Amino acid sequence: MDMDVTLLRNTLPEFGQEHLLDFWDDLSDEQRQALYTDLASLDLEDITRVFQNSMKSSENSQTKKDDRLEPFPEDMIAAVACTSDEQLDEWRSIGLELISEGKVAVLLLAGGQGTRLGVDYPKGMYSVDLPSGKTLYQLQAERIRKLEMLAENETEKRGKIVWYIMTSEHTGEKTEEFFSDHGYFGLNPKDVVTFEQGMRPCMTFDGKVILDEKWKIARAPDGNGGLYQAVAANGIVDDMKRRGIECMHIYCVDNILVKMADPVFIGYCHSKQADCGAKVVQKAFPTEAVGIVCKCDGKYQVVEYSEITIETAQKRNLDGRLTFNAGNICNHYLTVEFMESVIRENESKLKYHVAKKKIPYVDKSGKRISPDKPNGVKFEKFVFDVFEFASNFKLFEVLREDEFSPLKNGITAEKDTPTTARSALMSLHYRYILQAGGSFRDSGGQVLPLIPLRRSNSQSSFEVECEISPLLSYAGEGLAKIVRGNWYEPGHHFDVLVSPVKGNGHLPQPQKKKRKTDEQK
Amino acid sequence: MDMDVTLLRNTLPEFGQEHLLDFWDDLSDEQRQALYTDLASLDLEDITRVFQNSMKSSENSQTKKDDRLEPFPEDMIAAVACTSDEQLDEWRSIGLELISEGKVAVLLLAGGQGTRLGVDYPKGMYSVDLPSGKTLYQLQAERIRKLEMLAENETEKRGKIVWYIMTSEHTGEKTEEFFSDHGYFGLNPKDVVTFEQGMRPCMTFDGKVILDEKWKIARAPDGNGGLYQAVAANGIVDDMKRRGIECMHIYCVDNILVKMADPVFIGYCHSKQADCGAKVVQKAFPTEAVGIVCKCDGKYQVVEYSEITIETAQKRNLDGRLTFNAGNICNHYLTVEFMESVIRENESKLKYHVAKKKIPYVDKSGKRISPDKPNGVKFEKFVFDVFEFASNFKLFEVLREDEFSPLKNGITAEKDTPTTARSALMSLHYRYILQAGGSFRDSGGQVLPLIPLRRSNSQSSFEVECEISPLLSYAGEGLAKIVRGNWYEPGHHFDVLVSPVKGNGHLPQPQKKKRKTDEQK
Repeated sequence: MDMDVTLLRNTLPEFGQEHLLDFWDDLSDEQRQALYTDLASLDLEDITRVFQNSMKSSENSQTKKDDRLEPFPEDMIAAVACTSDEQLDEWRSIGLELISEGKVAVLLLAGGQGTRLGVDYPKGMYSVDLPSGKTLYQLQAERIRKLEMLAENETEKRGKIVWYIMTSEHTGEKTEEFFSDHGYFGLNPKDVVTFEQGMRPCMTFDGKVILDEKWKIARAPDGNGGLYQAVAANGIVDDMKRRGIECMHIYCVDNILVKMADPVFIGYCHSKQADCGAKVVQKAFPTEAVGIVCKCDGKYQVVEYSEITIETAQKRNLDGRLTFNAGNICNHYLTVEFMESVIRENESKLKYHVAKKKIPYVDKSGKRISPDKPNGVKFEKFVFDVFEFASNFKLFEVLREDEFSPLKNGITAEKDTPTTARSALMSLHYRYILQAGGSFRDSGGQVLPLIPLRRSNSQSSFEVECEISPLLSYAGEGLAKIVRGNWYEPGHHFDVLVSPVKGNGHLPQPQKKKRKTDEQK
Repeated sequence: MDMDVTLLRNTLPEFGQEHLLDFWDDLSDEQRQALYTDLASLDLEDITRVFQNSMKSSENSQTKKDDRLEPFPEDMIAAVACTSDEQLDEWRSIGLELISEGKVAVLLLAGGQGTRLGVDYPKGMYSVDLPSGKTLYQLQAERIRKLEMLAENETEKRGKIVWYIMTSEHTGEKTEEFFSDHGYFGLNPKDVVTFEQGMRPCMTFDGKVILDEKWKIARAPDGNGGLYQAVAANGIVDDMKRRGIECMHIYCVDNILVKMADPVFIGYCHSKQADCGAKVVQKAFPTEAVGIVCKCDGKYQVVEYSEITIETAQKRNLDGRLTFNAGNICNHYLTVEFMESVIRENESKLKYHVAKKKIPYVDKSGKRISPDKPNGVKFEKFVFDVFEFASNFKLFEVLREDEFSPLKNGITAEKDTPTTARSALMSLHYRYILQAGGSFRDSGGQVLPLIPLRRSNSQSSFEVECEISPLLSYAGEGLAKIVRGNWYEPGHHFDVLVSPVKGNGHLPQPQKKKRKTDEQK
């Protein structure tokens, strides 16, 4: 690239960014080339406008939104707990039909850096130490495979669920390598499509772009709402249309219980002609750190707990339920048509949210500093900020214990840790076995209770290890014919596990076959 | 004591306990005297009958109770979340009136050994590392003192809340010493009455009493339901009647949020003419490890999760709520009259529950063994087993985040740890300050959100430390006049704390006084 440094020297001051060339004279030719490329790629007007607008709306957000909020309209929510089995089955059938026709994709948001978890690789590669040793990516891949099979069994048509994975500069290469090294966990590589989200310059509180090194701007991923720009930039909608995909399930990588392309959710949204939908869980208590889906100024929004007062957070209906109760768990349904219209008409209206962060920088003397308190801002869009553009937006309330256990923090944290994720998955699978008519007994033949005792003073506290491969069952279905009337003796590594891809699993081993007698009944 | 060893040698074999004298010839005179006293105190008929009955009912409990259960009748529950402020105020006034007349006592169940918590002293002496360093006992003592003051303010009469503390062989002496060493935390020693619960012999699975040493029987406390025998044996009812006490609040030592003698609960039960009542919280999810209050065979009972199947645990009403939803948190109301009738007529009907435990024992060769798996049983009564004898039993459903955070396990466990207890208390107190119109700002003057950010990868994860002395406020009342319009800058040891007894507290220090402007409003 030819370098027109004079042009840069003239342009940068117009936007107050002339400091970016402060170290030009110290740089090697190679470093100059790198910095020039970096700077030339900046849309200075854009970053100036984004800085001004988002800082202003960040200040406004100090004013609480309470007076502008309305709860989500009751008649636009379906709650699994209040829905008949017949209705759920009907929605499931619709979803499986769509899947078997190849009309459903899953879209994974996997650009996060895992800072809080404390790993330097993509979160999806994390193993929470299940008996099988499976990573989040493998669990998810196997759920896709199983769901394709279930749809085929139901409809006698075989459709693909294409898996779109949005990575970032931090996670892209490692994610691709990981899938490739593991044979895409049995999926067809053509049906696993990765693309990278964008990065934005980090800036100081007074709007100066931060230098990460003398020859390099500090940049950060543009939030999970960077999805829409990245989808546009990578022709993802065209790819979807070419494949005949009509709708997608968008989700975050860190929820170990995620029901990818959940046919019940898909079927519900589709049968309601929703263009956009979200799964939510009931807030556990008023000050739980979760965003709530509601109306703000008449528009559907996710409102963060920092945007409301305690009075609003604690407000209850006459039946005792929290008025603002619909906790967002980042499980969204979008039609391809709606995605296309967002990109075409609304993406540019999505606001950047400001996140204050500790951003390493080069100081005036040229020394690189790692600050110990926030010194600048990152700019992020949020994936749910498109809700307001939907013409028919629906909520689907699911049970937290069945569907939501995010892996956010390291092992020493109080919540959302590898331990809690592992325990949530194994508890769910233990319940699947019980519901299917299997039981667990201790070495003395005593039936273990519904909730196995937890070992005291131990991190690994779930005494009965029970893991069901997604390839055996997606959500508990099909287990009865295998486990009914059998009982299992749990041991430290007991598992109900089939994993033909990696060859490290085995069929469930009943310790002893015993029919329920009438007496026991 | 004269020793009639021949009588023992003749009697023990009748009950299959002749092994208890196996080591007689090896013992010193002193040891012989000890063993003789121990054995002579045994009611062999009683222990034989208890063993047979409770083992039989333990076997029966392998048969699930599902078909015999009914949910608690709706019209016998009041839920705080569904009750108007006016109604709550009315109950509070009734409760305060009773307190000011000296008619209310609190009765603490503190005989537990703290095995799971991993301490060798009474749980009440535990400090969860609050800014004030207060122990559970101190927090509870101060709540009593404050409540007496509140009642006096409301009624201009000063009544005592007598504090009855049931300890055990393990906790009695240490508890008394602790209170004495700390000047009873400002309470009158005459109003703190300790008494010990009984111990029962531990037995093998085939009904042999276990020797802990060659000269000593293995014994364990007889469960929190040992309360009724201990109350009878120690003349506690007479003491209550002498003092004019009419009702009591019974609770467990380990709930850091416990609202002792909560005037709202007392007022509710009293105004409904209940002879017995229980506070409950909604079950968080179907397989939460908590007992539920319901009807079984037409009688009020607490049914443990091990006694029902997963279908029943997951059963929901049409509105989506769990059918069996009333989680027992060991917060009970009893009139003195009801307590008296239980002791007189029903105590002997209370069943012993069998708990399989690892019990150190002396083997045939005389060697003392610490087994690594359960080798015997303890016999325990449960405090809530008297519910069925009540003629007017009521439930009061409260909010978990306001009233329940038990300290059960050590720091490394997944739940109910010192960390979660500390965090629950400080979160509640933080909310009290916000509700009273105070606010917290960071060093840059930014208002902190409703839920302060948690430090990542840190055990001590609640960033804003906020503790309110019970002497300043029992349940959030009275704070507005102190904190309204003030803001506080949180630091590592920020606290809102008054603790004149120990002299280690200080009045809240507003960092800067600032009225809300209209603009901010």
